[in-house]
Amino acid sequence: MSQAVFDSSEYDRRIARTKERMAEEGLDAIIVSDPANMNYLTGYDGWSFYVHQGIVVTRNRDEPIWVGREMDANGARATTRLSEESIRAYSDDHVHSPVDLHPMDFFAAVLEDLGVDDGRVGLEMDAYYFTAKSYIRLQKNLPVAEFEDATLLVNWVRVKKSEQELEYMRQAARISENAMQAGLNAISEGVPEYEAARSIYTALIDGTDEYGGDYPSIVPLMPSGDNTGTPHLTWTDRQFERGDPVIIELSGCRHRYHSPLARTTFVGDPPAAVEETADIVVEGIEAALDAVEPGVTCEAVEKVWRDTIAKYDVEKEDRIGYSMGLGYPPDWGEHTASIRPGDETVLETDMTFHMIPGLWFDDFGVELSETFCVTGTGAEPLSEFPRRLFVA
Amino acid sequence: MSQAVFDSSEYDRRIARTKERMAEEGLDAIIVSDPANMNYLTGYDGWSFYVHQGIVVTRNRDEPIWVGREMDANGARATTRLSEESIRAYSDDHVHSPVDLHPMDFFAAVLEDLGVDDGRVGLEMDAYYFTAKSYIRLQKNLPVAEFEDATLLVNWVRVKKSEQELEYMRQAARISENAMQAGLNAISEGVPEYEAARSIYTALIDGTDEYGGDYPSIVPLMPSGDNTGTPHLTWTDRQFERGDPVIIELSGCRHRYHSPLARTTFVGDPPAAVEETADIVVEGIEAALDAVEPGVTCEAVEKVWRDTIAKYDVEKEDRIGYSMGLGYPPDWGEHTASIRPGDETVLETDMTFHMIPGLWFDDFGVELSETFCVTGTGAEPLSEFPRRLFVA
Repeated sequence: MSQAVFDSSEYDRRIARTKERMAEEGLDAIIVSDPANMNYLTGYDGWSFYVHQGIVVTRNRDEPIWVGREMDANGARATTRLSEESIRAYSDDHVHSPVDLHPMDFFAAVLEDLGVDDGRVGLEMDAYYFTAKSYIRLQKNLPVAEFEDATLLVNWVRVKKSEQELEYMRQAARISENAMQAGLNAISEGVPEYEAARSIYTALIDGTDEYGGDYPSIVPLMPSGDNTGTPHLTWTDRQFERGDPVIIELSGCRHRYHSPLARTTFVGDPPAAVEETADIVVEGIEAALDAVEPGVTCEAVEKVWRDTIAKYDVEKEDRIGYSMGLGYPPDWGEHTASIRPGDETVLETDMTFHMIPGLWFDDFGVELSETFCVTGTGAEPLSEFPRRLFVA
Repeated sequence: MSQAVFDSSEYDRRIARTKERMAEEGLDAIIVSDPANMNYLTGYDGWSFYVHQGIVVTRNRDEPIWVGREMDANGARATTRLSEESIRAYSDDHVHSPVDLHPMDFFAAVLEDLGVDDGRVGLEMDAYYFTAKSYIRLQKNLPVAEFEDATLLVNWVRVKKSEQELEYMRQAARISENAMQAGLNAISEGVPEYEAARSIYTALIDGTDEYGGDYPSIVPLMPSGDNTGTPHLTWTDRQFERGDPVIIELSGCRHRYHSPLARTTFVGDPPAAVEETADIVVEGIEAALDAVEPGVTCEAVEKVWRDTIAKYDVEKEDRIGYSMGLGYPPDWGEHTASIRPGDETVLETDMTFHMIPGLWFDDFGVELSETFCVTGTGAEPLSEFPRRLFVA
């Protein structure tokens, strides 16, 4: 998109913060491979992450440099404000090359050109799309460079959101509400799962009356029946049956910002055990949301959930949430703070989390989630959607 | 899905072929990380590739082993026929762990348990989702193992399709036709891009009267106007304008098998130059399809395209196609054979390709594609869709 997604000053602040973190780590340069981090630093947007690409940030150059495939350089021109000399593209014979040619050979040449080939270079060692081969090729091409793991360096810069970021997440929340309603309306006995997925997807992209939706980083998930304890199965031709619990997890997406939402519905009359479990989940998530405020740790929030469900003799020690926002497939999570035992991250204003607790038993499960922003006084859920078990 | 996607015998053949290739390479074991390869060898299906997972194949064990996150083990039980001892799951504290714990530590323990920790182990070094960190952790945990790059070993086994695989690709082709028609119907002056994307997505998941569609590995792409030369931009709120060329590239998906299709439409009356370019592209792709037969090389097919367009003084030396079929985000390509200069892969029956030539100029581009299967007598296009420029 050629319209500006953020002011220049917002990108400038992000790059300045990244350089501060690089200075703290003693890094002369970093190669940012995570598509969400690439977007965060420059605005770059496109379905091009199936080939190697990245943003190179050096301490002594103002502008970051986009590096990617020749046919995607126009995408960099269309979606970023980078000057022409900050867009460096490799030729197409680097792509799935039958000869000994790899995109990281080109990256190495860019680092040499920038004079950081003998420096300390941060790499996102555990980021999606930064492969083992990429690392090996960089090592081979730049034998003097000192490579450091900088996997979450930019991710941690992303943790606190700006007003404009929160605005996009609120827009995504409106889309999530519409899509959840569409899914709940679509599910009933005898309807194939794919028809419900179709209704949800239609709403996700239709967005609202004012704006459309982007593709979400994760497809809508609807584990049902015996499979509610199998959260990552996707839809099939199977028809919903009377007696199926169905968990819907989805997210609207706006300018790559998400606001995930999960609810559970039941096909037919829910047994008492399912209703009671839903009540416990609602009580637990509301208690945990009430515990959110600046200065509290992530693990303290999880503890409130755990203590609440313990009153009903339910024990469960799991991650119940994670920091999120900007994302590309396969994930909208930021991989930084988690709401789970042992995570001592202190909550600050403008952090955003997806809190998604659930209870699973042998034959059914109930999940209910909220995306929230930490404000000066507590948790602000971004969606408004009834917190209860639905009936299909 | 619990219904069988393929007969057991088909998985047995795939594993036997993989072990033959491992023997040729002198490998005792491989770790398969590419989700498409994981599915190919076991049937495993789920949106779980945002955490580390893999299939371990050893030469002296009949069954491969699924390794993944605890909450996805049920997905392995639901979608594969693996026995319980071939499903090995790591605990949730390995996921985005704040402490020094990585899923590959668990993989290393599995390799030890299988007695191949002192062997030659193949890794998909350049596969999506096999990160640099994964490699470093394996090296650290298994100092005696000898790691080899086995990136495309399973991908090459996938190149020739079985009858059942071709059947799923033909089903995907039916969905592609419906979705292409929906996209062409939706595009017109003043319609926002996202509404066209919505119509395409609805058709992709609605499938046909007999079956639904899966999510495709790549979202529908619709570069338009000045951006037809920017193939990987996704839809925005921009409205189509009179004078816009619009390229639609999409794929139906059935049991993760794809059959991509691209066409170009024009909003308003197309200028003569656009019509003429479309005629050249049609003539070129038809000549190239006519050149397909067993025994011919990929580069010879590309040469026919290039010679055809050269008659009109158009020069373009690019990849015009690639082997494909089974896939997960971010790509449906197999990364093996490409239809491009220098690729000497010899065509064999039951190979499947997406041939997607295009011509781009400063202010417009035209693309038109076919997915085809190599048969004993030539190329069998899987979709039936008119080969011409459309008018919106």
